[in-house]
Parts: sequence; C-alpha cells; structure tokens
Amino acid sequence: MTTIGEMGEDALIDLFAPRLPDTDAALLGPGDDAAVLSVDGNLVVSSDMLIEGRHFRREWSTAADVGWRAAMQNIVDIDAMGAVPTALQVMLAAPPDTDVEWVLGFADGLREACEPHGVGVVGGDLSGASEIAISVTALGETHGVEPVTRADAAPGDIVAVSAPLGAAAAGLALLTAGTGEGLEAIGLFLRPRPLIGAGLEAALRGATAMMDVSDGLLRDAGRMARASEAGLDIESASVPVHPAATEAGRVLGVGALAWALTGGEDHCLLATFPAGAFLPDGWTQVGVVTDGYQGVRLDGAIPDALGWDHFGA
Amino acid sequence: MTTIGEMGEDALIDLFAPRLPDTDAALLGPGDDAAVLSVDGNLVVSSDMLIEGRHFRREWSTAADVGWRAAMQNIVDIDAMGAVPTALQVMLAAPPDTDVEWVLGFADGLREACEPHGVGVVGGDLSGASEIAISVTALGETHGVEPVTRADAAPGDIVAVSAPLGAAAAGLALLTAGTGEGLEAIGLFLRPRPLIGAGLEAALRGATAMMDVSDGLLRDAGRMARASEAGLDIESASVPVHPAATEAGRVLGVGALAWALTGGEDHCLLATFPAGAFLPDGWTQVGVVTDGYQGVRLDGAIPDALGWDHFGA
Repeated sequence: MTTIGEMGEDALIDLFAPRLPDTDAALLGPGDDAAVLSVDGNLVVSSDMLIEGRHFRREWSTAADVGWRAAMQNIVDIDAMGAVPTALQVMLAAPPDTDVEWVLGFADGLREACEPHGVGVVGGDLSGASEIAISVTALGETHGVEPVTRADAAPGDIVAVSAPLGAAAAGLALLTAGTGEGLEAIGLFLRPRPLIGAGLEAALRGATAMMDVSDGLLRDAGRMARASEAGLDIESASVPVHPAATEAGRVLGVGALAWALTGGEDHCLLATFPAGAFLPDGWTQVGVVTDGYQGVRLDGAIPDALGWDHFGA
Repeated sequence: MTTIGEMGEDALIDLFAPRLPDTDAALLGPGDDAAVLSVDGNLVVSSDMLIEGRHFRREWSTAADVGWRAAMQNIVDIDAMGAVPTALQVMLAAPPDTDVEWVLGFADGLREACEPHGVGVVGGDLSGASEIAISVTALGETHGVEPVTRADAAPGDIVAVSAPLGAAAAGLALLTAGTGEGLEAIGLFLRPRPLIGAGLEAALRGATAMMDVSDGLLRDAGRMARASEAGLDIESASVPVHPAATEAGRVLGVGALAWALTGGEDHCLLATFPAGAFLPDGWTQVGVVTDGYQGVRLDGAIPDALGWDHFGA
C-alpha cells in the first residue's frame, strides 16, 4: 500500500481528478486556481462538513460510502431549495498515512452519487490533517423558479415530509449494537438515497417553506418554525416510519417512531404547503402550521428530545 | 469562558452569523439550506482548507488572523482568474472545548478581510472535530472578461510576478526561530495582503496565463509550465525580494532569496504576458516562457528544492 504522504500532493491529484464526475455546466473544471461554470438563473450554494469519528467511522463506511454521503447530503440541500444541483467543490483533509486507495475510493463514491443527477465535481482541495475532514460546497441554479426558504411557513399551511423517515437512524443503531448485518437500514445509513428532484417538484406545486431533514424531524421542524415565526404542530401518528426502520426496531426490540422523529441523515424533505394543496406523490402530511407559539410541538406538547447537536457529546 | 460544546450549534450560529460580512450579490444569505446569489457573467469558484498545526498555530495566530488568512487566500484565487470575488462559504470544524470567543474572533477576521473587497460570507457549516479544520469556497463572477487559466503560457511570453515575494516565509522563519517580534514579515505571514484586483487588471492587460503563488514561486511556476506544456525559465536575479524578507534575513543571518523562490503564502500573482507587453504597475518580469523542456528552470537549471507539499512532513 502507498500512503498519500509518500505519494505527494501533485501525484495524488493526478490520480484523483480523473475519477471525478463531469458536468456540462463546467466551462473549466478542476486543476486551475478556480473552476468556471455557466449559471442558468440565480446561483444556489450550500456547504456541509463530514468529520471522521463524528459523522462516519472507517470501520463502518467504505471510502466510497463516505464519498457518496458527502456528495448526497449536499446535493439534497440544493434540491431542498427547489433548485437544480449542478456541481460540487470537494475538500478532503486526511492523515499522511492514509492509503491512496482510500482517497481514490472516496472519489468513486462521489462519482456514484453525482453522476445520476448530472452533478460534477469541478474543484476542491487536498490537505494533510490528523483526522479525515471533508467539506463539500454544492452549487445549483434556479432556472427561474423562486427558491423556497424555510422562513415562509404560514399558519394554516399543511406540514409534510417527502418520504418515510428513520431508516438512517435505525441503521446507525444496528451498527452501534453490532447486529443486523445485511439489513436495509444499514445500507440506507451508509448511503442515504433521498429522491433528488423532489424539492423542485414541491416548489412547482407551491411549497411555501422547505428544508431537508438532516438533524431529525423535530429539531429541523423547530428550525423552520422559528425561521417562519410560526408553530409547526406534528402529529406523531401521521409520521411515516420507513419499513427498514420498523424492521430494525423488531431486531433490536424497540419502537421505530423515535428514529423517525429525532434521527437525522435520511435527508428527506420537510415542507409546508397551502391548506388544501395537492401533495406531490410520495409526500405525507404530518401536521399543520399554527400561530401563537413559535416552535415545534408534538401531539400538542413541546418535545424534550429534539435530535442531533453537532457539538454534542 | 464558554465553550462551543456548552453553547450548542444553534446558539453559536446566532452569535456567529451577525458578525459576517454581507454582499450585494446575496439574494438570500446565511441561515437556510442554501444561499442564493445573482451572478453577472459566468461563475468562478475555488476552495482551500486551513488545518490547525499545518497551516496555522493558535499560539502564533489570533482567531482573527486565521479568519483573515482563510478569507484572503481564497479571495486571491478568484482574482488570479481575472474575476471579481463576491462571496465565501465558510466551514469551520473545531473541538467542543474551543472558546466561543475564538469562533467569534474568527468571524471578525473573515469580515476584516472581506469587507474592503465587497465580499460577503453567505453560508457555511459549523461542526465539532478534534482539531480546527477550516474550509472556504470562494465565489466570483467574470463580468464578461475571459478567465485566465494557468494553461496558456506560450513560448516567448514574459513571466512576471505582481509584487515582491518572500515576506510570509520570512515571517514564518522568524516565528519558528522565536525572534523578530514586531517585524513586518511576521505581520505579513499572519495576515497576507495581496493586492486584490491585480488579477483583473492583468487579465485586461492581456495576461496569457495566471495563478497565485501559494506554494512557492518555483513550485507554482512548475505547475504553470506543466499545465501550459512549456518551460518557465526564471532568473533568480530578477525575482523581487520583499523588503520585509530582507530585513528578516538580516536578523536571522541568512539570505532572503530562498524565501522569495520557495516560500508560499504571500499570495502574489504569477502571470505570463505576450513579449513586449506593458506590465501593470507593480509587476516585475522574472523570466521567459520557452519551448522544449516542460517545467521550471532557475538560471538555466532544474531546481532541486521546490517548495511546499501539503502532505509533507
């Protein structure tokens, strides 16, 4: 095995760059001081980090799994605005003793996640570090559709989610318990598979507010509520639980609803629509927007466990 | 003192975001899944990382110094394309025991570096980590000026740099030696001050290839040479040495030329211009582009010490 420290930066880039996906939007791709992109409409831009030991573990995730997650969780942020994702900038810091093969596998995962959506990796940076730290900036374009923020949920609106929830959290619980090998939830934790394009469809159907559920339904609904200066009242019985979470719950002897309410990383969408709106296929109403209290309520009460804090223990 | 782990992500963002600089280009700033920007012309995008212990040390750099460097080294990448920088995405990972004041000081440094150039911080991410890792993606726009890559240097062109070199490397040498307190070179290492706009001016003056000198003149000239499939022949006697480097050399009893040739992080520009071109103010010819050998030569020979490798010891 060759390490990235032995190989050096320039030689590593020469191996890494050809594995990255292209995009038609790139007028100039990786390898210069900057990439150059054409943009149709306005630019939509979002960034997320993945830190080893906090957001992934190398004993659970292959390098390609990590690349997949890094790409997908950023692509979905663009979709969650109702915009079309086009390109990623990917920054990877890794210890000098990291196997070159790991870095190339990471590139393969980026490509596997991006290519079906026409998203390219147009640039980034490679650096040494004492732990693996990945940062991705995703770029998209609006094509004339007004972006849907999280700040315009209005009292009386329907609250809905784009897909059943809890599979990723259930997969994490199985891995933590060291059981459930081969179950679907583990696969969905390692490679989240949100339906890209659901956000654009929701925007075209008149969604008033939208965001992706990255830190858990209740926590993210609370953020939407505060941004919109409204209340989001969620009814637990309406929350669609992913069958893979239910299956994992049976294996672990616990209920799956808590994963659906507080587990993050499914990266489904949370959105509000005007009362009486015809929801897009696959969406489920989980509550209503209220005035008065500005925050999230579950079955009429303020929930005490909200979800994931990025600085928490 | 309060740590970021005690404060939690949402409360920290509430303190952090208001300190960030705005930009007129932002139709939607921080706080949503993504920011939305208008783009005049094509989009130019670049990314860089700063890792604690590799790119900065907290005993040398204040939090604001680190924020300044993170912003400036990315802004200059946009300028090095001949484009106009508009906005940054900033991702900060830090240990949970990091003082909240450090993170707020970091935001202040970002603002101090960005505001004079009308550059805003429009989004990003905060995460826990075991060491501080900063990633910045810089965005700019072309305003109809064709971007200048590093790949179009042509035999017969003049090779030039935008400013005297070596101050940052000299400052690092002083800090490493534990001497020279108060000398200008240290200040220029902690807060590089490239002239933003020099790249756009060079583009308008017909620069054929351009890049910023981030890893040392010889290493970066070698990259330009390989990208352009040409030779860059540098004449050491022509390389302008920054007076602050000369001063530091006197203090340390060494010559300053090596810093100018192999020291990175001044973030001046390296560019080629057609023979006979009238160089913009402040630029100095340091060599010529040749055919035959594809790489950098110094005084006619292949140099053995090139500069900084990001995975090196």
